[in-house]
Amino acid sequence: MEAEDCNQRSDNSQKYILVTGGAGYIGSHATVELFNEGYNVVVVDNLCNSSIESVRRIEKITGKDIPFYKVDILEKHALQGVFKKYKFFAVMHFAGLKAVGESCLIPLAYYKNNIVGSLVLLEVMEEFAVTNIIFSSSATVYGDPEILPISESCPAGKCTNPYGWTKYMIEQIIRDVCVANKKFNAILLRYFNPVGSHKSGLIGEDPQGHPNNLTPFIAQVAVGRRSELKVFGNDYDTHDGTGVRDYIHVVDLAAGHVAALKAFRTNCGCKMYNLGTGIGYSVLDVVKAFERASKIKIPYSIVGRREGDVARMFADPSLAFEELHWKATRDIDEMCEDLWRWQSMNPYGFNDNNNNNNNNNNNKLCCSNGI
Amino acid sequence: MEAEDCNQRSDNSQKYILVTGGAGYIGSHATVELFNEGYNVVVVDNLCNSSIESVRRIEKITGKDIPFYKVDILEKHALQGVFKKYKFFAVMHFAGLKAVGESCLIPLAYYKNNIVGSLVLLEVMEEFAVTNIIFSSSATVYGDPEILPISESCPAGKCTNPYGWTKYMIEQIIRDVCVANKKFNAILLRYFNPVGSHKSGLIGEDPQGHPNNLTPFIAQVAVGRRSELKVFGNDYDTHDGTGVRDYIHVVDLAAGHVAALKAFRTNCGCKMYNLGTGIGYSVLDVVKAFERASKIKIPYSIVGRREGDVARMFADPSLAFEELHWKATRDIDEMCEDLWRWQSMNPYGFNDNNNNNNNNNNNKLCCSNGI
Repeated sequence: MEAEDCNQRSDNSQKYILVTGGAGYIGSHATVELFNEGYNVVVVDNLCNSSIESVRRIEKITGKDIPFYKVDILEKHALQGVFKKYKFFAVMHFAGLKAVGESCLIPLAYYKNNIVGSLVLLEVMEEFAVTNIIFSSSATVYGDPEILPISESCPAGKCTNPYGWTKYMIEQIIRDVCVANKKFNAILLRYFNPVGSHKSGLIGEDPQGHPNNLTPFIAQVAVGRRSELKVFGNDYDTHDGTGVRDYIHVVDLAAGHVAALKAFRTNCGCKMYNLGTGIGYSVLDVVKAFERASKIKIPYSIVGRREGDVARMFADPSLAFEELHWKATRDIDEMCEDLWRWQSMNPYGFNDNNNNNNNNNNNKLCCSNGI
Repeated sequence: MEAEDCNQRSDNSQKYILVTGGAGYIGSHATVELFNEGYNVVVVDNLCNSSIESVRRIEKITGKDIPFYKVDILEKHALQGVFKKYKFFAVMHFAGLKAVGESCLIPLAYYKNNIVGSLVLLEVMEEFAVTNIIFSSSATVYGDPEILPISESCPAGKCTNPYGWTKYMIEQIIRDVCVANKKFNAILLRYFNPVGSHKSGLIGEDPQGHPNNLTPFIAQVAVGRRSELKVFGNDYDTHDGTGVRDYIHVVDLAAGHVAALKAFRTNCGCKMYNLGTGIGYSVLDVVKAFERASKIKIPYSIVGRREGDVARMFADPSLAFEELHWKATRDIDEMCEDLWRWQSMNPYGFNDNNNNNNNNNNNKLCCSNGI
């Protein structure tokens, strides 16, 4: 007998989905896709590393009012207040600190925010009998992979930084909760390298300070915020010597979350899926694609390898296709075109000096002290 | 140039050592050994799974008043209060939930108490510039070992229960703190199977409810609290078919902590050591040794294997000998004699009905709700 599909019980208009970190880069795109699919979304975000302007832009894109709560998920009582107001079908859990380099400098802040935040969320879910969670994990849990492409059966662990360890640990915690509580269902989504933005150019990646990732850095060079790109090593065993990664359009990634939500079935337990394209592009491939999209020459220089970087990393995304009926459809050119639209429309992100609508005084790391 | 040995800077009477979970089985024995070596000890314990009577007994053994604070390490403000009163040289961190079976049933409580408790402790240590920690880890971090004897270079991870995962995760968190803060020094002690009690018979293992471990179960059968021992499987690939473990006398284990304390050097970073004897005894070997010690016949029956149990597990303890100049000296007979003295003197543990001095209303699991 086929297990009942929880998601088919009623139409989506009855279903509230809680999005933690919904003002952030991936959370905001997921929120848009959820609205597009007819779900009711409630967003919580502490705005410590994101902007309330992002929520306003989502409202502009979707034409809907978004119930938004400035809540730090570490503050249990505040989170309980949100759960009291709505009957959630599922939680999409994006909230967390995400800068790899910073996590090496202040590991306790990362462990506290990411792990304790997730524990509080899981406790409150248990208290209110909300039993479906989609967790924002990362391909970083694979560490330095021994086999390519990386499938979900590849061993995880041996992470190379505290950020990666927090993802790995939260995965394990969720897995154990699913074993202990058979009503609990979880889908862990391991992202490869999200790029691009919504077609409107209204929302996108808005890193605070020095960007950790390649594509926001390139885009900031293109708008004149940075003088040149530094390429870390051109002597890797790849087609042009620069590191190869699996870039995925953020709208494809967001669609993967909706596909996961639709796949929830009663007693499905804990599943994990790679979200990637399966195609690897080198740093220089991405530079060229961005130059094609923006018609702007990106100056770069080659510097030494960066510790912890691996030569090549790309997904085997076939399991998500088989079980979630999802696959990425947008190519590297579309990623770069959409990134460029966002960056050229918002050269300084949501904090654009020309944009007086934003009201974000929080664009700094503000790790909660409230364990 | 040899690094300065922090421990030689001043005599031990100047040094306060904080013992978290100092009213518990291993913490209480470590406290006694610390006093014996001239250290000043401050104990914090939330008494959720231990008894204040244990602290009184330590005072009886050592003839010293023990500064004791009924503090849950999850309560940051209370812990800060203790750090304000004393200048600690080091922390020995025993506090945590420890029942393997229970951890599978209520994993969130284990993750919260053990991980969040350790995070709060590390934050407070950082705040008060206390930079030496000895952490109570476990051989369970090795999961099902591929090679015997188990040395510290064997891969950890693949734990078989949430309790083990909490130990593995806390180890990783401490390791990352040591990388980020070069002043921080940590020694992770991976215990094998602690058995026995202090020679006085005044303190010992006092499990609440159904004992998880073999030896307290045997001892409870001997005093008539349980009718017979159940032996889980006699078809393992061992000399008599029953599971083989590395039992270590708790006083040897406690001495290992003092040896670790003496080994702290400036900038020693994060080290880990197995604390075991290197000798494996089967379940039936232990039954026979206990019968010799107690002169009481232990009835037992063979039942099916227990999920997650492995055939054989024992330590390579040579690294602790080389670097900490420590090794276990007490054999299985002494372990059983000392266990029997404790159990026969205290048939119902610290809660003995004949012992009206105890004032423990807390002998139940009381996971803090105060994240």
